[in-house]
Amino acid sequence: MKKVNIAIFGVGRIGKIHLKNLLRFPGVSVVAVADTHYPAEEFKKEFKDVFFSSNPDEVLAMPEVEAVLICTPTSSHAPMIELALKSGKHIFCEKPVDLSLERTKALVDMANQSSAKLMLGFNRRFDPDFLQARRSIQAGRIGDIQIIKITSRDPGLPPLDYIKNSGGLFMDMAIHDFDMARYMMGKEVKEVYSRGLVLVDKQVGEVGDVDTALTTLIFEDDTYAVIDNSRKAIYGYDQRLEVFGNKGMIQVDNNQHNRNVISDADGIHHSLPLDFFMDRYAASYLNEIQFFIDALSKNEPIPVSGNDGLKATIIAVAAKKSVLEGRPVAISEITAGL
Amino acid sequence: MKKVNIAIFGVGRIGKIHLKNLLRFPGVSVVAVADTHYPAEEFKKEFKDVFFSSNPDEVLAMPEVEAVLICTPTSSHAPMIELALKSGKHIFCEKPVDLSLERTKALVDMANQSSAKLMLGFNRRFDPDFLQARRSIQAGRIGDIQIIKITSRDPGLPPLDYIKNSGGLFMDMAIHDFDMARYMMGKEVKEVYSRGLVLVDKQVGEVGDVDTALTTLIFEDDTYAVIDNSRKAIYGYDQRLEVFGNKGMIQVDNNQHNRNVISDADGIHHSLPLDFFMDRYAASYLNEIQFFIDALSKNEPIPVSGNDGLKATIIAVAAKKSVLEGRPVAISEITAGL
Amino acid sequence: MKKVNIAIFGVGRIGKIHLKNLLRFPGVSVVAVADTHYPAEEFKKEFKDVFFSSNPDEVLAMPEVEAVLICTPTSSHAPMIELALKSGKHIFCEKPVDLSLERTKALVDMANQSSAKLMLGFNRRFDPDFLQARRSIQAGRIGDIQIIKITSRDPGLPPLDYIKNSGGLFMDMAIHDFDMARYMMGKEVKEVYSRGLVLVDKQVGEVGDVDTALTTLIFEDDTYAVIDNSRKAIYGYDQRLEVFGNKGMIQVDNNQHNRNVISDADGIHHSLPLDFFMDRYAASYLNEIQFFIDALSKNEPIPVSGNDGLKATIIAVAAKKSVLEGRPVAISEITAGL
Amino acid sequence: MKKVNIAIFGVGRIGKIHLKNLLRFPGVSVVAVADTHYPAEEFKKEFKDVFFSSNPDEVLAMPEVEAVLICTPTSSHAPMIELALKSGKHIFCEKPVDLSLERTKALVDMANQSSAKLMLGFNRRFDPDFLQARRSIQAGRIGDIQIIKITSRDPGLPPLDYIKNSGGLFMDMAIHDFDMARYMMGKEVKEVYSRGLVLVDKQVGEVGDVDTALTTLIFEDDTYAVIDNSRKAIYGYDQRLEVFGNKGMIQVDNNQHNRNVISDADGIHHSLPLDFFMDRYAASYLNEIQFFIDALSKNEPIPVSGNDGLKATIIAVAAKKSVLEGRPVAISEITAGL
Repeated sequence: MKKVNIAIFGVGRIGKIHLKNLLRFPGVSVVAVADTHYPAEEFKKEFKDVFFSSNPDEVLAMPEVEAVLICTPTSSHAPMIELALKSGKHIFCEKPVDLSLERTKALVDMANQSSAKLMLGFNRRFDPDFLQARRSIQAGRIGDIQIIKITSRDPGLPPLDYIKNSGGLFMDMAIHDFDMARYMMGKEVKEVYSRGLVLVDKQVGEVGDVDTALTTLIFEDDTYAVIDNSRKAIYGYDQRLEVFGNKGMIQVDNNQHNRNVISDADGIHHSLPLDFFMDRYAASYLNEIQFFIDALSKNEPIPVSGNDGLKATIIAVAAKKSVLEGRPVAISEITAGL
Repeated sequence: MKKVNIAIFGVGRIGKIHLKNLLRFPGVSVVAVADTHYPAEEFKKEFKDVFFSSNPDEVLAMPEVEAVLICTPTSSHAPMIELALKSGKHIFCEKPVDLSLERTKALVDMANQSSAKLMLGFNRRFDPDFLQARRSIQAGRIGDIQIIKITSRDPGLPPLDYIKNSGGLFMDMAIHDFDMARYMMGKEVKEVYSRGLVLVDKQVGEVGDVDTALTTLIFEDDTYAVIDNSRKAIYGYDQRLEVFGNKGMIQVDNNQHNRNVISDADGIHHSLPLDFFMDRYAASYLNEIQFFIDALSKNEPIPVSGNDGLKATIIAVAAKKSVLEGRPVAISEITAGL
Repeated sequence: MKKVNIAIFGVGRIGKIHLKNLLRFPGVSVVAVADTHYPAEEFKKEFKDVFFSSNPDEVLAMPEVEAVLICTPTSSHAPMIELALKSGKHIFCEKPVDLSLERTKALVDMANQSSAKLMLGFNRRFDPDFLQARRSIQAGRIGDIQIIKITSRDPGLPPLDYIKNSGGLFMDMAIHDFDMARYMMGKEVKEVYSRGLVLVDKQVGEVGDVDTALTTLIFEDDTYAVIDNSRKAIYGYDQRLEVFGNKGMIQVDNNQHNRNVISDADGIHHSLPLDFFMDRYAASYLNEIQFFIDALSKNEPIPVSGNDGLKATIIAVAAKKSVLEGRPVAISEITAGL
Repeated sequence: MKKVNIAIFGVGRIGKIHLKNLLRFPGVSVVAVADTHYPAEEFKKEFKDVFFSSNPDEVLAMPEVEAVLICTPTSSHAPMIELALKSGKHIFCEKPVDLSLERTKALVDMANQSSAKLMLGFNRRFDPDFLQARRSIQAGRIGDIQIIKITSRDPGLPPLDYIKNSGGLFMDMAIHDFDMARYMMGKEVKEVYSRGLVLVDKQVGEVGDVDTALTTLIFEDDTYAVIDNSRKAIYGYDQRLEVFGNKGMIQVDNNQHNRNVISDADGIHHSLPLDFFMDRYAASYLNEIQFFIDALSKNEPIPVSGNDGLKATIIAVAAKKSVLEGRPVAISEITAGL
């Protein structure tokens, strides 16, 4: 089998995860890594056999590069996607495409008209438990879905600087849950009602964001999803799902640190959920890249398209508007101008 | 200790439960039962030592009767309460006081000005698990509450005739959950956003009701509760609670038929939740009457006042209005005219 | 339906439970209670409508008494059974029949030749969970049983005086588990290997008993049960069962105080098992008497015969011998002299 | 940090797992792989950068090789260990050292007198859950251990040919559990009582082995462990542990395929335990090699010594003898001749 030649743009936290995963994939060759800030010497120390460049253009110009993974900060996603599309490279890009809805729309349109494939990194779809839940639903195990409930709470507040540039809780954090709701339901959202609060840290409010939110999504057929978000659950990273259908219910519980149960005079104690997203979703990161490589090498469909990214972004914009205006917001209000 | 002399009005399903429970209470004497429809001979066969009358007025005129339990159909709650108050009897009344908000308000006002005590039968507060959850919250175990999530699904549709006269899903079924949210939170609701659907049986829609609903309650301090209701969960009666605070989370799971777990080639199987509300809440019915008797004999405060009944009714009215108008409804809109 | 006329001998802790339960049974009339020590006035205060006598003979002489419940201390079980059998009364007797194997054998033989029915109070068989486990086994749900594992640990040491007169851990405590193993397996034991230790309190050793034990039972077909006992589990009363068959496994877990789960920074905490046997087995006490009454009124078979009591006693004797001699003991060694 | 130079002997199933794991370790260099049967071309196809030899002696002669992993069939463990010790190489060897107790003893003695380190592959000690259990015990979390219960059931019978050469259930399968009991308890065994049965497949009996067993281990201080083994649990690989102490209890439950729970009209269904040992213990294989490498590079103690292998083998021999003779067997009976 011919290997797929990949380049990675950005070797920060998430870029390194992908790099290490790809180095273990039999059907992949990592032909280049580009990062405009990362020191070349340091990179060489850790990955001596991988070609490194400080110039993404140089890498895009390499004819052998078939696909790029864009793992740079959010603000450079859009220009990177544009450059890559113009170079005819397939693209895997971390979410979101861009904080601007218009820009996102334009890039997704461009990708749709290109022969290059664009996949968005909604990694949670590839978590083995959620993947299995989706398969059970598709197999008709719980019949027609009536309501989806998602609990999505972080173990702690990110740095304020991060929050300032994140696009806000809905665009940065809840966007994963919006995608998850669409993915499980297999239908489109038509209306959004969100409430947002500052309960974790006042400074979050001072930079114009919320740290706690409750969102109701109304789907085309009037069924709904409810999502509750918090930037801080004291017991750790809380990522649960409940899908209720007319033939049954699927619940996905948290992954815990260990399976040990200790009984003592005070109670029966289980271990906490895994509290770091890279541990919790380690398998998801591995799986999503496998799906991307399979889409390229076996010509299978891209499992998370640019369009999926656009839809989730639209919901995030609607959610923010709903909080500001204290009313349900129709998706058509958001897409009207696009 | 002097016994409390009780009369029961109505010996249908719930009246009989209370009667049987009261016959076992050491501090209580059931001095009379009144039911305008129940055949006297049949009653005597089952409860030969209990005085029975087909005329509630006769019973209210008995000076030894200190308190009455009103277990008649909803439509006669209001006249019964009025009569009992005028006779100076303490009252335990099944929910709701009345389907009319105005009538409810008037009766609660009358009760507040009376020396007689009025307790409403929101039995779920007295379920040992929910009671314990409330105590943990009050003890500060999970800190300040940020969100409450209630799952409340019936095991099957009641008869259509029942639904027609029930006041609708919000007034008949969700009212328990509205009370539970207030009880757990210890705060008042200021805004309600509800969605309602007909997913279980079209006939429910034809009689003007919904069978599936999702409600967001906004409390005075902007924190919220989310409640999802269904008239039919195929796996049985689903009554769960999750309270999330800044110091922890309490979850109350369902009571199951048994504690047996069977592992076979297909999976690991647990038994279903108890599917009949009288089994699920057997302990609640016992406990609530104990609290009522204690309130009378030890002069302890009534744990669920008429005011609690009024508040829950107001939320139910707001929820129905929210569904009809497709927008969040302020509680002040409902109470404006009262 | 004709009521069954019952007398109760002994109104200590367990006698009162049975009395209260029987007073609620529709098909039963408690015609007399006899207790040689209990003050008559005190009894009358609590149960004013029940005939009380300090003389069991007086009660046995009452022709209307059809059955007696023997709830006196162990040492008087045997003489009471003998008297009751001679009076032709049916008998429900708390375990054990007698600490002496020979005496037990003689009484069981006498009962077998009598037209009176004798039921032994192995109440745990009637716990709803264990009852359901037995039914699943009989329905073939787990195929042929290969091994049974019983965990049976008390929440704390009984008073030393009680231990001294109890016949020891095997006769007093493990005897329930020996019966449970026979009940689940539906086969007879042929060999016993027990180990005993004093780990909870040295004084237990000083009065010649053990407080911790591990027993292997070998059944006729060479399959086995393993039972571990402790007089003190710090987390409460631990009563679990696991039955492993070639088509599946059944596990019965403990009943807990409540269903609440609290997650905080330290872990995920569940409540402890019910720690008092009368709470844990409240339903069993009710059920076992129902079975006894049904056996009398509907002429159904006695679910725990005198023979069952004898078999469990034989195993207890073998277990004690095994500990003393440090080797597996054949049941035939014990029954040889009988 | 200087890398540790490793050679691997045998690239069958387990050898390949170790090879793949080692290729990912930063502090390790795999300088050679030797296998007398594996086709060199095939190996090169899969691992093109690794030096391969069909002659172990050639590899042992390479001065740069510091340590060898012996992953060959059991029958060649002993000669390989001997050769490696004579070459002064550190050794990691899969269990058991040898089916002969005398040979095992001789090699362990030889290793103890050598400067080379010998580690045995009791991988389960390194399972994250069991590792955590051990740490909790050592931290005093459950006080003094009173009883250990191990459930160890395979998901299915291995091929009969495998069983014939395996040394039998105790030497092949239960030996892991004997080691686990010693590891958790931190004490030595003084007596063994085992029962063995053929319940899964008659053919197992025909080749002189059992497929179902129950073992009681008595430790120096008279406390005990009980281990039940089956070659076939229909619900999958069952690997559970319970450690009961005077201050608490630790239970380690199975790892399941996923965290999804499906509720439907028939029950509440969880997924089965992982059914293949390489999936169930994937993390253990990784961890044990990490401990081995750390022992070499950081001069930390070997976590599973040759002596641990010898002790477990002695218990296995005693267990087999106990089954044959139908009595508890003292460890001193086995070690007397050594």
